Amino acid sequence: MDFDRFFRAELDQLREEGNYRQFADLERQRGAFPRAKSHDLNRDVTVWCSNDYLGMGQHPKVLAAMHEAIDRSGAGAGGTRNISGTTHAHVELEAELADLHGKEAALLFTSGYVSNWAALGTLAARIPGCVILSDEKNHASMIEGIRHSRAQKVIWKHNDVADLEAKLAALPANCPKLIAFESVYSMDGDIAPIAQICDLADRYGAMTYLDEVHAVGLYGARGGGIAEREGLSHRLTVIEGTLGKAFGVVGGYIAASAELCDFVRSFASGFIFTTALPPAIAAGAAASVRHLKQSNVERQAHQARVAQVRQQLDAIGLPHLENPSHIIPVMVGDPVKCKYISDILLRDYGIYIQPINYPTVPKGTERLRITPSPVHSDADIDVLIDALEALWAQCELARQPLAAQ
Amino acid sequence: MDFDRFFRAELDQLREEGNYRQFADLERQRGAFPRAKSHDLNRDVTVWCSNDYLGMGQHPKVLAAMHEAIDRSGAGAGGTRNISGTTHAHVELEAELADLHGKEAALLFTSGYVSNWAALGTLAARIPGCVILSDEKNHASMIEGIRHSRAQKVIWKHNDVADLEAKLAALPANCPKLIAFESVYSMDGDIAPIAQICDLADRYGAMTYLDEVHAVGLYGARGGGIAEREGLSHRLTVIEGTLGKAFGVVGGYIAASAELCDFVRSFASGFIFTTALPPAIAAGAAASVRHLKQSNVERQAHQARVAQVRQQLDAIGLPHLENPSHIIPVMVGDPVKCKYISDILLRDYGIYIQPINYPTVPKGTERLRITPSPVHSDADIDVLIDALEALWAQCELARQPLAAQ
Repeated sequence: MDFDRFFRAELDQLREEGNYRQFADLERQRGAFPRAKSHDLNRDVTVWCSNDYLGMGQHPKVLAAMHEAIDRSGAGAGGTRNISGTTHAHVELEAELADLHGKEAALLFTSGYVSNWAALGTLAARIPGCVILSDEKNHASMIEGIRHSRAQKVIWKHNDVADLEAKLAALPANCPKLIAFESVYSMDGDIAPIAQICDLADRYGAMTYLDEVHAVGLYGARGGGIAEREGLSHRLTVIEGTLGKAFGVVGGYIAASAELCDFVRSFASGFIFTTALPPAIAAGAAASVRHLKQSNVERQAHQARVAQVRQQLDAIGLPHLENPSHIIPVMVGDPVKCKYISDILLRDYGIYIQPINYPTVPKGTERLRITPSPVHSDADIDVLIDALEALWAQCELARQPLAAQ
Repeated sequence: MDFDRFFRAELDQLREEGNYRQFADLERQRGAFPRAKSHDLNRDVTVWCSNDYLGMGQHPKVLAAMHEAIDRSGAGAGGTRNISGTTHAHVELEAELADLHGKEAALLFTSGYVSNWAALGTLAARIPGCVILSDEKNHASMIEGIRHSRAQKVIWKHNDVADLEAKLAALPANCPKLIAFESVYSMDGDIAPIAQICDLADRYGAMTYLDEVHAVGLYGARGGGIAEREGLSHRLTVIEGTLGKAFGVVGGYIAASAELCDFVRSFASGFIFTTALPPAIAAGAAASVRHLKQSNVERQAHQARVAQVRQQLDAIGLPHLENPSHIIPVMVGDPVKCKYISDILLRDYGIYIQPINYPTVPKGTERLRITPSPVHSDADIDVLIDALEALWAQCELARQPLAAQ
């Protein structure tokens, strides 16, 4: 078999479908974010699609903690958590995260992807007869973890508690069940009915596993996510989060009972057999979590920016998906135009928004996923809106009826 | 079901078997490594079991590159590689790694574990009818990747080319085959017969996938691993490595043809749907790779230290597994004594060596896995040898006959 010919053919097919990904070669500018240098274009651009939602990736406290940890402990951890790789920074960060979610314990992973994959995979595989009830829009990392476990999986309709209940009721009463879902869904920005799902979990004796990666740091009085905001943290068995989005660094975690965390710690291959995160990463993340526990400034500014962008989009009639979160999907509905608008935004306006096409979202719902942050200025927003208005006209895309002025 | 009770029972069973892991809470001291502060004991200890094999985790060039990248670009990458998370530091590091192995391209992952899991999982799942021939001692990350792919797996006897050939010959001539193996095996320190395996791959039209995580940086004129040392890099389809051991930082990668890397980049869930490594991590790792390409000082000092420890162990007749690598497994052969010796070494001598028991190694082969590095001094070695000699006597463990003086 000519392997490279096979790879080439598969890649050509992606290209034909318009699904071949080209990465933008950027260089973030600390202190000037959302500005970044595009190495492809050799010019500065404004990033409008980052998941560094609050700009914590350039917060002085976070950077100071990282510098300080490098000076104190060096670069890497030097081993797995079990073999010389547990540093005091990990221990402190896990305590911060347990406290953030009001749980007994927390467990760090090298990424949010790995935390979902390893925690769900381990729970589903090791609890005898466990059935996973998975929201149909769950993230790839959850799907892969469940797949890896080879446990029985039941998929329920997205955010549909009636369907979830029907599926719970159809399972034997005494079989162990785990309901896996997210709070804020990344591509549509909609939010799960967490309280109702917890009610069902109570009624049917199921565990709950809530992915809050697009919510931690952003919602709740201390940044504990949607569950904190709604006073529900104590009702969830596992809250999973990331340190790589609102907290601005990298890494993932679960927060849960001491027993559950110890169980995953002891049995999850993806936790055990991997080098621990560098001390500087743990220290930077801990500084970020700590800061956002006691500061609401960033969250308020974030919400204000999101409202402002929505308002200005409405004022020119640009269609965006209504949702109760900070994610603004501006709907194009055509893969070629979506990619084209993104290309022209970058080339002519210095605005970087990655197009989101199939298979990440269903065909016909291609979009620009905009993530305003407190570091975007009024002027940034004006430039964005003017550019979108011009491109909407150029591409002859439909507008929504304007609201009464 | 009372889930926490189930978890507790499973953990209790681990404790009864002596397999419950307790993490040492350490704080590495930059510039003084292998010294670290033990937060459990509130005293300084000497680490003898780190995979920061060369001490690059405290190399001034690595730390300067990290500091500089934090100042330039901030903390995190802020997104996946596709959505705003590719920074110029990633692009540069991938070019360094491709060059290191003489390959067209390289692809970064968040860890070595993820690189094996995602690359093997994607290749095995996506090449129609692909059969994986896996060495029986392959690392957990390779095993999990192969398992995840659901491809047919054929396990061959460890480092046994006759068995590998028999298994290749038993497969249909036209079925796609991938031989997965490691160069240096972590727990025994033995080295694969790479040239013979490549010969078989040629004969049977198989791809080769070589995990060099315990060899990159350490072997070869530029740190390209055992394959480079033996002039074989060009014969391997994929070389997988880590940035978290000899290079002293964190992260994993594959180096291969441009098509293969692009294929994995385009289809591997564990690559696509995860936040990119922070720019400072990529910059630190690139500085480390670059330095070790042109400096042999660290490699020579490393080998000298390893030889010295072996010689002093031989001089007092302490049994250690003979192997051609830098890993020194001192054999205890009893799980309780192995844990006891480790505990006393830490408590009474300030020497930290994590005990390696079942299931990481077979029962009856429990060991202390010692990893000497250029930063261990003559005095460090003398203290280690004296402590081991005292504990060997105390535990009434067998010695080897002394070599003729």
